[in-house]
Amino acid sequence: MGKCIKVDMTTKEVKVTDLPERYTHLGGRLLTSQYIYDEVRPTCHPLGEDNKLIIAPGLLSGTMAPSSGRVSIGSKSPLTKGIKESNGGGITGQKLGAMGIRAITIEGLPKDDELQVLVVNDDGAKLIAHPDLAGKGAYETTEILRNKYGKKAAVACIGPAGEMLMANAGIANCDVEGSASRYCGRGGLGAVMGSKRLKAVVIDTAKTRADDIHDEETYKAASKKFSKMLKDHPVCGEALPKFGTNVLMNILSEAGGLPTRNFSEGRFEHADAIGGETLAKVCEERGGAATHRCMTGCVIGCSNSYPLPDGRVVSPIEYETAWSFGAHCDIKDLDVIAELNWLANDIGLDTIEAGGVLGVMMEAGVIPWGDGKRAIEVMEEIRQGTPLGRIAGQGAVYAGQAFGVTRVAAVKGQHMPAYEPRTVKGMGVTYATTPMGADHTAGYCVTANILKVGGFVDPLKGEGQIDLSRNLQIATNLIDGTGFCLFIAFAVLDDEQGVPTIVELMNARYGWNLTVDDAVKMGQQSLKAERDFNIQAGFTKEHDRLPDFMLKEKLSPHDIHFDIGDQELDTLHNY
Amino acid sequence: MGKCIKVDMTTKEVKVTDLPERYTHLGGRLLTSQYIYDEVRPTCHPLGEDNKLIIAPGLLSGTMAPSSGRVSIGSKSPLTKGIKESNGGGITGQKLGAMGIRAITIEGLPKDDELQVLVVNDDGAKLIAHPDLAGKGAYETTEILRNKYGKKAAVACIGPAGEMLMANAGIANCDVEGSASRYCGRGGLGAVMGSKRLKAVVIDTAKTRADDIHDEETYKAASKKFSKMLKDHPVCGEALPKFGTNVLMNILSEAGGLPTRNFSEGRFEHADAIGGETLAKVCEERGGAATHRCMTGCVIGCSNSYPLPDGRVVSPIEYETAWSFGAHCDIKDLDVIAELNWLANDIGLDTIEAGGVLGVMMEAGVIPWGDGKRAIEVMEEIRQGTPLGRIAGQGAVYAGQAFGVTRVAAVKGQHMPAYEPRTVKGMGVTYATTPMGADHTAGYCVTANILKVGGFVDPLKGEGQIDLSRNLQIATNLIDGTGFCLFIAFAVLDDEQGVPTIVELMNARYGWNLTVDDAVKMGQQSLKAERDFNIQAGFTKEHDRLPDFMLKEKLSPHDIHFDIGDQELDTLHNY
Repeated sequence: MGKCIKVDMTTKEVKVTDLPERYTHLGGRLLTSQYIYDEVRPTCHPLGEDNKLIIAPGLLSGTMAPSSGRVSIGSKSPLTKGIKESNGGGITGQKLGAMGIRAITIEGLPKDDELQVLVVNDDGAKLIAHPDLAGKGAYETTEILRNKYGKKAAVACIGPAGEMLMANAGIANCDVEGSASRYCGRGGLGAVMGSKRLKAVVIDTAKTRADDIHDEETYKAASKKFSKMLKDHPVCGEALPKFGTNVLMNILSEAGGLPTRNFSEGRFEHADAIGGETLAKVCEERGGAATHRCMTGCVIGCSNSYPLPDGRVVSPIEYETAWSFGAHCDIKDLDVIAELNWLANDIGLDTIEAGGVLGVMMEAGVIPWGDGKRAIEVMEEIRQGTPLGRIAGQGAVYAGQAFGVTRVAAVKGQHMPAYEPRTVKGMGVTYATTPMGADHTAGYCVTANILKVGGFVDPLKGEGQIDLSRNLQIATNLIDGTGFCLFIAFAVLDDEQGVPTIVELMNARYGWNLTVDDAVKMGQQSLKAERDFNIQAGFTKEHDRLPDFMLKEKLSPHDIHFDIGDQELDTLHNY
Repeated sequence: MGKCIKVDMTTKEVKVTDLPERYTHLGGRLLTSQYIYDEVRPTCHPLGEDNKLIIAPGLLSGTMAPSSGRVSIGSKSPLTKGIKESNGGGITGQKLGAMGIRAITIEGLPKDDELQVLVVNDDGAKLIAHPDLAGKGAYETTEILRNKYGKKAAVACIGPAGEMLMANAGIANCDVEGSASRYCGRGGLGAVMGSKRLKAVVIDTAKTRADDIHDEETYKAASKKFSKMLKDHPVCGEALPKFGTNVLMNILSEAGGLPTRNFSEGRFEHADAIGGETLAKVCEERGGAATHRCMTGCVIGCSNSYPLPDGRVVSPIEYETAWSFGAHCDIKDLDVIAELNWLANDIGLDTIEAGGVLGVMMEAGVIPWGDGKRAIEVMEEIRQGTPLGRIAGQGAVYAGQAFGVTRVAAVKGQHMPAYEPRTVKGMGVTYATTPMGADHTAGYCVTANILKVGGFVDPLKGEGQIDLSRNLQIATNLIDGTGFCLFIAFAVLDDEQGVPTIVELMNARYGWNLTVDDAVKMGQQSLKAERDFNIQAGFTKEHDRLPDFMLKEKLSPHDIHFDIGDQELDTLHNY
């Protein structure tokens, strides 16, 4: 039985209790989604007193299982107005897992404006007032808090964007080096944290690993087997470790699935200039690292470490970020992309949505296409909270409305990531139907559509995409519950021992007797709870749709639109 | 059989046709709502190519029936994202009615940005390019167009707000004097017109009245009877003609139902300074008019004419406007209110929503409470389209999000008017349940709740409010179809000959044989179509709710919250 830290921001009371029994089998996203479903009124205001924020490590986080240290943060989203789980790397999940803390729940609104920090260590947990951190960026906040509360502590914090309750505010987790760049970025959960005036959660512990593995020997053997499975796979063991996620830039452009200049073309003529191969070269030339781990014990290590000319280091430049600040905005300069990435991390913004905003402002003519200098200035305006910054900090749909742009690539209020749904139709199905809003990680059909992992489903055709997306959405929910990084899925999908090994690990960890079927049911149940929450919040099938323009505008180079019909989309949730 | 003018903004083709037979019995809102239901895809983008705008005079507009010249403009709303009918006075409806034009439908998006004006006269109808009008205010636009196309022409136009596609842009109709101040204001339909690059519709005719009354004699007698009914009623014949709608300021404050300082109190200590009695005095002192007709043939004449110190005249200062710029913003200076009203009219904004925005910005601390000077500057920023203006022009929910204000008194994205739903609970039911978003005119329960017209239902209690609102929502839909001003309802509700006389007028006008039951069914059918449109657009019962804070915060002076339950609200549409 793990522990649960219950924080009431109204009374400032912090209680350490046992995890309620009904959540025994849940962790990570499985836990955050069920908890939000159980405890949050679906129609409440996301920034009001009835919303709650829950931080939960995966079921295997804080153990020797490879690449297993992810953390889930759940809430009702200020961006989508639906349920949200935002999943991050860094060391937050690992520290919590090592300490046997299964969840931190944060509820209520304070009566005053003073910023608080929740400090969790081996002695207990308490709120400490920190008015000194007001307005500080995520990098500096993390540094101050690690200096004060533990040099190796995990810090999950918000930047100025979260304090200003911007709908694109994320929550930054630091990595081993203390870089505040491993974001639970999507869905504006930083604004929920900001509404509660909680600037940061610090987790400091002498423990490095959970010490209560039920069957240590079996766990060790299964971890080893799983580790080998990852290392032997061409994506997990070769492509990702070599070039990071940004290896996808050239691949997607080649496939005609790289959204370019606000989703007006499918191929970016400068893809190579901002892609993984170039990025790795620059990182190495400047003494950074083309390969880097966002958390200890990761055998993939797809992160990177990009030194800016002035010495600041950005880690990592993910594919989706290089796309959002790059191809989407017609920017072909990696240094500009890195600077925008650094700013987003520091101000406390999701990079996908932030780039989405800039692209929409370019379409509006407010920023000239490709103008990195002006884009950087707009990001600084977000930090300052100027009127323009207030617009730009609220996400792409909001910015589109401000400037009269109807071509906004968003679903349920959330901007699409770096995969063109017209060309990579499986991703279109996921964007449309996941309860999370347009989100690539919710059902990453790039696997079978582009990488030919877990079979092949022609990306340009509708056939098979619903089944593909459905299966991935269910599997992802489970994986996000374990604490495994989603990237293990490449190997798991290609190996029939993949899922059984995950189940073996959970059983050995907790002394359970789950079958693979049980595990799949856990994923199904969680997805159902998420969808039910949204339905109770007022969502209907009409919200499971791509934006109008994608159904009409044909996209180069394949000259295709999104043609999977509404009725077909509506079958996704039949399971 | 009336005429219909069909305008395609893509091809610039203008066709004059017969009104389709299926719409024969429909006019005004009955027609616009049915047309939008039939012709507009509910999930389309309100500013995209699939939305349409329809302008329809009431069934009796352009005849001798008293106070019957209203016009309905319908579309999918950029503000509520649902169906919208926005109802205005002035002479647009009368001219159309006199010419036998039952509808103008505007569809498609142009391929270029050039502003167009639709000129309708006795020779036909055509689009004329008018790039010279770009950025011009509604007052000047109307003056230019009347000088050019007909000194007595009706002009329905947008201001800069509509051109900038702001979600709070309205459509201004001019009155006999040419003052562009009779707004189809609510729901942002000016932005739909702006998206189609249609700056104005000019209607010029030598005809003063429809010449095809089926049974002239009966019509004349019924009109006379109806006229007497209005003149004999204490509200229609005395209170409104004497002090205009703003007679309500002191009444509502006294009742504790005047939303004050962003719905934080129910009584405004300066109500009298901005109320109808004071307003009438100032109007007369300055050589304006305490009494004025917004359209010819009105026997109520509740408008006024308020001279500003510099000579500009504002007509009318309605109660809702005096409230939104006054009590809502803690402003107690009628000159400031008049200036804000003039600016809203000229820029092309709905005054209720514009005041709503200012109050929300005051709650946020962006404008100090009661600071009229700063409020005026913000309105000017809307005209200029500065970033702050882009926020302020999009409505109160949008502005609330920009500045982190959760206390926004809106339903379905539209700000509430001048009636506290916690104190005047019937209005709360209407705000929550009408397909139009928070809208007092959709089911004006102030009648029985406050004015004791049509019976009495205790405003502080839940009992009877659902039935009251339902009946009024149905009746209003019918009235908005006839072209009668809603204010005739006061008399109609208190006179059993009221509705039968309306039916008699319709029958005599067109040679129909409608019964009172038929007429009620027309209202029901229209309300159903509106609600069905919204359901197909993705609305659910969860959207039929007042904002959270009104269910929790108790309001002075009665110390009450809104306590009509969700399940009870959901019975409203059972009929």
